[in-house]
Amino acid sequence: MSTSRIRKEVDEALLGFVDRQRPALLTISDDLAPMLSALDALLGGGKRLRPAFCYWGWRAAGGADGGGIVAAAASLELLQASALIHDDVMDSSDTRRGQPSVHRRFEALHHAQEWPGDAEAFGSGTAILLGDLCLAWSGEMFETCGLDDGSRRRGRAVYDLMRTEVMCGQYLDMLEGTRGEATVATALRVVEYKSAKYTIERPLHLGAELAGARPDVTAALTGYGLPLGIAFQLRDDVLGVFGDPAETGKPAGDDLREGKRTVLVALSLEHASAAQAAALRRRLGDPELDAAGVNELRSIIEETGGLAACEEMIERYQAEAERALAAAPIDQEAHRALSELAVAATTRST
Amino acid sequence: MSTSRIRKEVDEALLGFVDRQRPALLTISDDLAPMLSALDALLGGGKRLRPAFCYWGWRAAGGADGGGIVAAAASLELLQASALIHDDVMDSSDTRRGQPSVHRRFEALHHAQEWPGDAEAFGSGTAILLGDLCLAWSGEMFETCGLDDGSRRRGRAVYDLMRTEVMCGQYLDMLEGTRGEATVATALRVVEYKSAKYTIERPLHLGAELAGARPDVTAALTGYGLPLGIAFQLRDDVLGVFGDPAETGKPAGDDLREGKRTVLVALSLEHASAAQAAALRRRLGDPELDAAGVNELRSIIEETGGLAACEEMIERYQAEAERALAAAPIDQEAHRALSELAVAATTRST
Repeated sequence: MSTSRIRKEVDEALLGFVDRQRPALLTISDDLAPMLSALDALLGGGKRLRPAFCYWGWRAAGGADGGGIVAAAASLELLQASALIHDDVMDSSDTRRGQPSVHRRFEALHHAQEWPGDAEAFGSGTAILLGDLCLAWSGEMFETCGLDDGSRRRGRAVYDLMRTEVMCGQYLDMLEGTRGEATVATALRVVEYKSAKYTIERPLHLGAELAGARPDVTAALTGYGLPLGIAFQLRDDVLGVFGDPAETGKPAGDDLREGKRTVLVALSLEHASAAQAAALRRRLGDPELDAAGVNELRSIIEETGGLAACEEMIERYQAEAERALAAAPIDQEAHRALSELAVAATTRST
Repeated sequence: MSTSRIRKEVDEALLGFVDRQRPALLTISDDLAPMLSALDALLGGGKRLRPAFCYWGWRAAGGADGGGIVAAAASLELLQASALIHDDVMDSSDTRRGQPSVHRRFEALHHAQEWPGDAEAFGSGTAILLGDLCLAWSGEMFETCGLDDGSRRRGRAVYDLMRTEVMCGQYLDMLEGTRGEATVATALRVVEYKSAKYTIERPLHLGAELAGARPDVTAALTGYGLPLGIAFQLRDDVLGVFGDPAETGKPAGDDLREGKRTVLVALSLEHASAAQAAALRRRLGDPELDAAGVNELRSIIEETGGLAACEEMIERYQAEAERALAAAPIDQEAHRALSELAVAATTRST
């Protein structure tokens, strides 16, 4: 299948799953309709990267085309929806995929209905519950994907590990942010667990294990997926600071206002003069940072050489991934698709 | 097995599962140790009601004793841990099972370490992630319980439904709370999904389906479990207002301060004079409610006849459950255990 064809099939599987849940919810109560609308809106966006890597991990391991692997791969989008919804609560983010975040959406519903209680608490409470529902549904969709018990047993071990890793990675990310003392090394550890494994390596492994991959294929997918995943997240960090809001769907400088302790920031601090470091530390994490402040921080990150160092790291990890892919014992079609995905993951603008 | 013997085996299975996760977390980072400590503390408490109902559902359906059903049943405690952790964030509760709630625990860690970031956001963010981890782990523990694929396939359908129902029930609960307009009927709908099905009916069904129950057994378990579950939650509502903090592990009157729109409150409002209703509405949900205020509200709830009406409902549902149990096509041992559990669930003091 072509990558656009897979995307379409993943979309269909995902929306089909949610459509099968819909009547159960509305039978409990019509009051649950806004939960479904919020989920529909969120799932309407997204690049379906994790399902794509899962599908090509399966194909790389010799799996044949079919609906089972597509449904298993699509279930990763529900896991990701859960992570995004909860992440936005934790970061108090206003927007996601160019729309209001789930908690802001329900806060707005509360205001619009003029309910007497606390609108903000209602918004974040609903987002916690909808994220929980997506997490439960991701497991349900995986288990009911239609692949046989033996396949799922192998895949489940990866699925379980991936969930534990991403949740731990998110905690470490928050911890570095609140301690405000990330080095390049500690920031990279967060990137490894929160992003590289979760977004690329484990989805590849999941697909591969579902297909019963040989150990050399699994190892080759790690050789390709882990550095590519790091490059992917570093690109994300650069976009979080320098990206165009029209393309990223997030307000300019949001990562700076949140004070995220990214590898980009750690590299900048490492290369900074005392004055530059002081200015960076002073303004980073200031929720009131305006456009001028964002531009000032962008300039510092460029002038220290932090941006150039980060771009250099992206290239280095990307090259490492390409070398591993070139040597991987997989067929030509999987090779070509993974090569395309590598480009899509690291040269994107959103 | 006796009920105390099951409790012990469930405890062992639960702690064994967490112990097997421990090295994976600490390999990622030592910084994850506080997450494990918080979970250990939370799992140290709890009545293990859901595992007990699951185990006796299995036995009622003719399942034989063994480690598989114990592990499957114990996984419900991780689901419950997730619900409690997230519930406490949503309600801003300070305590749980007589100890600080998870979010308050991490807020305190933040203060103790004198980290520069926002302690409250760190506390609630960590609690969201730990709740997610428990939710993921509950699924993992269920799927790796050791029962065969066919059993788990049958049980999984109940597990999936139960998770969806409890999350939807919690949303409806929060919605009634924030709209502040619950009637006895709408409050009972919340009780059905959030508590009765989740705590008793579905755990019974889960065990029964794992054992491949005959439809008449499943129906009998509903006849017993659903009214018992309602009685259980109504007892909880009464304890939330009138319970002894030394026994409940929660500060006196917390449910009143939160403004929970319980059946007890709805019954009181239904029976109240205009003056009593106005006083109840005025003070309910006041976070500053002191001991005198709590006593005043307790008096109103008694004087309206709301408390008596609620106790009467508890008795009625309990009697309904007993009648269904007496007629259930299950063996004597299961019958005796479920009869004991009915008493434990509705005449408890915590």
